[in-house]
Amino acid sequence: MVQVEEALSIIAKNSCKMPIRKIKVAKSLGFILAETIYSPMDMPPFRQSAMDGYAFIHSELQQLDVVSTSQAGDFSNKKIKENQAIRIFTGAYVPDDLDTVVMQEHTAVKNKKVEITKMPVRFANVRNKGEQIKENELVLEKNTLITPAAIGFLACLGITEITVYVKPKVAIVVTGNELVKAGRKLAQGKIYESNSIMLQSALQGIGIKKIEVFRVKDNLKATKRVLKSCLSAFDVVLVSGGISVGDYDFVKEALLSNGVEELFYKINQKPGKPLFFGKKDKTIVFALPGNPASTLTGFYIYVHPALKISMGFESIYLPKIKRKITVPFENTSGKTVFLKGLYDDEKVTILESQSSAMLNTFATANALIYLPYDVVDIAKDQEVQVIPLY
Amino acid sequence: MVQVEEALSIIAKNSCKMPIRKIKVAKSLGFILAETIYSPMDMPPFRQSAMDGYAFIHSELQQLDVVSTSQAGDFSNKKIKENQAIRIFTGAYVPDDLDTVVMQEHTAVKNKKVEITKMPVRFANVRNKGEQIKENELVLEKNTLITPAAIGFLACLGITEITVYVKPKVAIVVTGNELVKAGRKLAQGKIYESNSIMLQSALQGIGIKKIEVFRVKDNLKATKRVLKSCLSAFDVVLVSGGISVGDYDFVKEALLSNGVEELFYKINQKPGKPLFFGKKDKTIVFALPGNPASTLTGFYIYVHPALKISMGFESIYLPKIKRKITVPFENTSGKTVFLKGLYDDEKVTILESQSSAMLNTFATANALIYLPYDVVDIAKDQEVQVIPLY
Repeated sequence: MVQVEEALSIIAKNSCKMPIRKIKVAKSLGFILAETIYSPMDMPPFRQSAMDGYAFIHSELQQLDVVSTSQAGDFSNKKIKENQAIRIFTGAYVPDDLDTVVMQEHTAVKNKKVEITKMPVRFANVRNKGEQIKENELVLEKNTLITPAAIGFLACLGITEITVYVKPKVAIVVTGNELVKAGRKLAQGKIYESNSIMLQSALQGIGIKKIEVFRVKDNLKATKRVLKSCLSAFDVVLVSGGISVGDYDFVKEALLSNGVEELFYKINQKPGKPLFFGKKDKTIVFALPGNPASTLTGFYIYVHPALKISMGFESIYLPKIKRKITVPFENTSGKTVFLKGLYDDEKVTILESQSSAMLNTFATANALIYLPYDVVDIAKDQEVQVIPLY
Repeated sequence: MVQVEEALSIIAKNSCKMPIRKIKVAKSLGFILAETIYSPMDMPPFRQSAMDGYAFIHSELQQLDVVSTSQAGDFSNKKIKENQAIRIFTGAYVPDDLDTVVMQEHTAVKNKKVEITKMPVRFANVRNKGEQIKENELVLEKNTLITPAAIGFLACLGITEITVYVKPKVAIVVTGNELVKAGRKLAQGKIYESNSIMLQSALQGIGIKKIEVFRVKDNLKATKRVLKSCLSAFDVVLVSGGISVGDYDFVKEALLSNGVEELFYKINQKPGKPLFFGKKDKTIVFALPGNPASTLTGFYIYVHPALKISMGFESIYLPKIKRKITVPFENTSGKTVFLKGLYDDEKVTILESQSSAMLNTFATANALIYLPYDVVDIAKDQEVQVIPLY
């Protein structure tokens, strides 16, 4: 049996990044960049007007003939004289001869002549070529999270493909003779299976799409066979149930006999003590207890950081914040306790009914409260660690 | 021109919830529930063992004959006598005659006889039918966010479909003669168009999938025509560019001539002053300035809450937190300023290069710093409002 922090460090040490692959920028939201990107071009790619106004050659002259127009997207390098100006708009090409743009608010126009009522300094309102980024300058560093802003930035430099860390393929293996798929009739002694759909949505919530669900009865042979094929075809295997010490808990034996190395089994915590973490080649395996609330707690605390590592993230844990607890709490279990709670800007409330068999509390909670095993008495209004979930 | 807070309240007042629709629970992650759900069944649906152990009729007898086994998923109501017990496992059916389960750790077993070494109280370790939730009891209230826990909870009650608020269909209309799709050759005077892909990914980031992109040249007729068809076919129309006051900015005129009611135009802010919000029937329209950083700021501050309302959320704004600013800042603009920043647990740093034309800073920022127009001098280490983005 290990402590929570020990379990987390074993997971961090044994999880590894997925391979890298080139993908379309348009499909890259939420991926982690696996290369450093340098600009293929100057931006802006030409001298650009920063204003709606008139472009001209800076001089003493205050009255100029308007000889043509440069709208955004236009291009002309027609010779312009010192007594001439062109009407120009934001983002438009500034012809090579011209050095200054006066904003339209500082002009008066009559009969194709513009009078500059407030003379700008030379070079005013002209964005130089490469002013924002030059060819070969750094665009995004390796390990950057691809956000909407990053996608826009890459696109404005004409970049359409980038190399990212692939997301893992995840197998969910659900064990239990008592389990029936929702939608079917429930015979006596049976219950609806909900862990697979819950884990699937938790995975989807962090952007993982390649998920397959396997169901297996409580017998060693079937469990061994299903796990064998999962271990060879998936990057991460999540098993639900069958990991306790009952006569019909075959998961641990089936994993070990398939060559999975046990990295820990059982964590000094509540809920979810019987949690197995192991590895075979590059595939990591979590066997989570079957009680739904234990399964989901195990997912957020242990599976989540392992998946984040695999996807290339550097910040892998759900953030922890501190909140004042609304009631005193005594933890005499000697175990680290994760409680379903509701937090707001100042405090956190422990929700009633913390049964690990049921999700009712989890479904209305917005956080887990993390109470370490070695703190027994927690006073009202004492600050505790809270892991916001939504 | 309106202030930021005024703009936000006009948006909140004029945005409305989308229609509701029945969808599969398996596809409901991130939706908002549009009905209150009551349980169709008792959970557990039968008396269930909470432990691996032995079920028996509570009495003075400490030695019992083990006559059968109830594994999770099994069902039998065979008559059991007072001197008998059955081997039972967690989650298994407890036959009607039996009232108590002793955990296996408190027994000694020899020759099909079990000796109870520590007698539990009557009814111990038996979960009653409906103990966790009874038929017709509240499962989830209307307006609940569907999380993985909620999905698991619904599934364990056999619920496969729920009614939720539909997500809006969004049109992105990009204007500008200077814009070229990434991947093509860039002629002189042109730049790559990046706002459509950026807005698309920002929309995808909040779970919106029905998005169409339209591109239109800077002329009134084409702009009118494209907007007309968007207004009739989409719930939200986002226009990028063409909303300033240049000779080639046709968006506002095209919107008004299509019967869009102007709710505000121009916000006293930097970046992104020329921002138009309007409505026609149930379709809301945002015309965002074309500079990429202004577009994205406008999206997070104004479009985001409107979309959240449409999807049924009650909490619609990106949360604000407070952080100490690392340098003094003087805001003499008289405008509310949104700055790209990097925050951590304690402080926030204003990033260099806040140009609205470029996304380089936005791509490395993790937050917007919100400085209201009426606060001029901000001292180093003063707390400011920060809107975390990632």
